[in-house]
Amino acid sequence: MITLYFAAGTQRWTQFEAPLRCALQEVGIEADLSPHCADPSLVDYIIYAPDSAVQDFTPFTRCKAVLNLWAGVERIVGNPTLTQPLCRMVDPALTAGMVEWVLGHTLRHHLGMDRHIVNPDHIWEPSPPPLATERAVTILGLGALGQACARALQGVGFPVKGWSRTQKSLPDITSHHGDEGLKTALSGAEIVVLLLPKTAATENIVNAERLTLLAPGAVILNPGRGHLIDDTALLAALDSGALGHATLDVFRIEPLPKDHPFWAHPQVTVTPHIAAETRPKTAARVVVENIRRGQAGLPFLHRVDTTHGY
Amino acid sequence: MITLYFAAGTQRWTQFEAPLRCALQEVGIEADLSPHCADPSLVDYIIYAPDSAVQDFTPFTRCKAVLNLWAGVERIVGNPTLTQPLCRMVDPALTAGMVEWVLGHTLRHHLGMDRHIVNPDHIWEPSPPPLATERAVTILGLGALGQACARALQGVGFPVKGWSRTQKSLPDITSHHGDEGLKTALSGAEIVVLLLPKTAATENIVNAERLTLLAPGAVILNPGRGHLIDDTALLAALDSGALGHATLDVFRIEPLPKDHPFWAHPQVTVTPHIAAETRPKTAARVVVENIRRGQAGLPFLHRVDTTHGY
Repeated sequence: MITLYFAAGTQRWTQFEAPLRCALQEVGIEADLSPHCADPSLVDYIIYAPDSAVQDFTPFTRCKAVLNLWAGVERIVGNPTLTQPLCRMVDPALTAGMVEWVLGHTLRHHLGMDRHIVNPDHIWEPSPPPLATERAVTILGLGALGQACARALQGVGFPVKGWSRTQKSLPDITSHHGDEGLKTALSGAEIVVLLLPKTAATENIVNAERLTLLAPGAVILNPGRGHLIDDTALLAALDSGALGHATLDVFRIEPLPKDHPFWAHPQVTVTPHIAAETRPKTAARVVVENIRRGQAGLPFLHRVDTTHGY
Repeated sequence: MITLYFAAGTQRWTQFEAPLRCALQEVGIEADLSPHCADPSLVDYIIYAPDSAVQDFTPFTRCKAVLNLWAGVERIVGNPTLTQPLCRMVDPALTAGMVEWVLGHTLRHHLGMDRHIVNPDHIWEPSPPPLATERAVTILGLGALGQACARALQGVGFPVKGWSRTQKSLPDITSHHGDEGLKTALSGAEIVVLLLPKTAATENIVNAERLTLLAPGAVILNPGRGHLIDDTALLAALDSGALGHATLDVFRIEPLPKDHPFWAHPQVTVTPHIAAETRPKTAARVVVENIRRGQAGLPFLHRVDTTHGY
C-alpha cells in the first residue's frame, strides 16, 4: 500500500478522483489516495498542479516524485525546496487537442476564412488561396507538442520548418537550432506557431527584430506561453501592417484583462486558454504509469531537466 | 501530329496554354494545340469546359475524347450530340484544395472558432471543445474528393461515416449506401459534408425530413453542388435552431444574388466557390495523360459513366 497525496485543488480532485482510482486498479496498484495529507513524511508520490497550496516540499522526505498534472512546470521548477524528481504531464489527449487547435487555426488563416465569416458587404470574390504546399509554416519548439503539430501540418501538405534551442535529430521534420537557426526558421515564414516552454531564455523570444524576418502579412499563433511574445512589439507590427494577424490562446495575465488592447484589436483573435487542456481520463493513466515505474525502479517518463527548466 | 482543340474560353486559354504545351513536351506528344477550330473533322481531342461555346459535338467526327477541365460534368453529360467518350477532371491539386477547405471548415466548427473570431463583448469562457474522436462527421459522396476528405478527417481523429448511392468497398472508410444507409449515415451526425455529384437523384437530397436526423445544432458544409440542398428547408432548420450552421461554397445561382437570404443569415457562411479550383499545372498533366492513353489505345482515366451522369 502506497500513499498518494493529490495536491492539486478541490475542483481537480472532483475531476480526477475516479479516473485515478480506475487507472490504479487497471495496473493493480493498491494506494491510499487522498486530497488531504496528515503526515507529509508518509507520502510516496505527490500528484500536483502548480497552483497548489503546497509550495514547500521539504517535509515530504520519502516522496519519490512530484507528478505534475500540467504540461507547463515554470511555476514549480525553480522551487528551491523541490529535491524530488519532477515529471511533466504529456497527456495524449492534451496533445490531440493541441494538434486540433493548431491545425484548425493554421487552416483558418491559410484559407483566409475570416473574410468569409465576417463579410457585411456580401462580397463575392472568388480568389482561391494557394495550396498548403505553397504556404511556409514554422514551429518554434519541438517538444512532444511541437513535434505532433509539425507532423499533422506536414500531413496536410504544409512545408514545416521547426526550431528548438538545442539540436534535435528528427528524421521527418526539418529542424533548426540556436540563434542562427532561429533566423533561418523565421525568415519568410507566413504562419508561425509558438510551442516553446516558458524559461528565462524564451521570454520575449518573439521580439520586434525577429518579427521583421517574417513574410509580409504573416500570422502568429501562440498556444504556448504568453511570455514568449513581446506584446508591445506585436501590436506595433500589427498596426504597421507588417504582421497580418495574431491568434493567441495564452497571455501574461489570465483571464486576459478587460482593458487589454488585444481584445479590441481587429487583427488579434483571443482564445481563452483552451488549446491544451489536460483530460482526466488519459492524464490519470500517465500519472499512474509513472507511479508504476517508480515502484518498479524504472526511470520516470517526462522527467523535467531542472537545469533547463522543462 | 495530332490536333487538339481548346474549347474552354479565352481566359482559360491564357492560363492553360503554357502548362499544356509543357505537359505535352514532357511526354513527347507532338500536337497542333489551338483555341480555334478551322475544321472540326480534323480534331483528335477536345479540351473542354462546360461553359464553352461548343455545344454541338456532331461535326467532330474523328474526335477520340472530350477532356473536361472541370470536375462537374452535369452541363455536358446530357448533351445528345455527345457520342465521344467524356472524361472528368480529377486534378490532384483540386483534390488537395478541397481537402484543405473541408478539413479547415470542419475544424473551425468543431473548435467553435467563430465565437472567438467575433467576440464583441470580450467574453473569456474557457470551455474546451471535445476531441475530434468525439465528433461525428458524415460525408455524403465517396468519389475521389469524398474519399480524400474522409481520409484526411480520419487522420485528425474524426470518426467518419461515408455514404454513396451505390455500395463501395473502401477498406479504410465506414461506408453506407442506398436509402436506408443514408438514414444511418445522417442519424446523429454533428458535421455533414456534401460531396455528391449533381444528378437528378441527388437534387434536394438534403431536405427537411433528412435534416431532422442530424444531431441538434449540427453543421452542414457544402462544397459539392448547390442543388444538393433544399434551401428553404435549410433556412427553416437554421431558424428553428435544429441546425447550428451552414457553410456553403456552391449555390443554385452563382455568384449568389445580393438579395439571397443566405448572405444576411447569421448562421450561414458563404464562401465564393473556392473550395475546388482546377490548377492549370496539375490539370494540364491529367489532360495530357489521357491524350497519351488515347493514342496508345489504353482506357481513359476518369471516364464519365453517362448513364449515371458522373
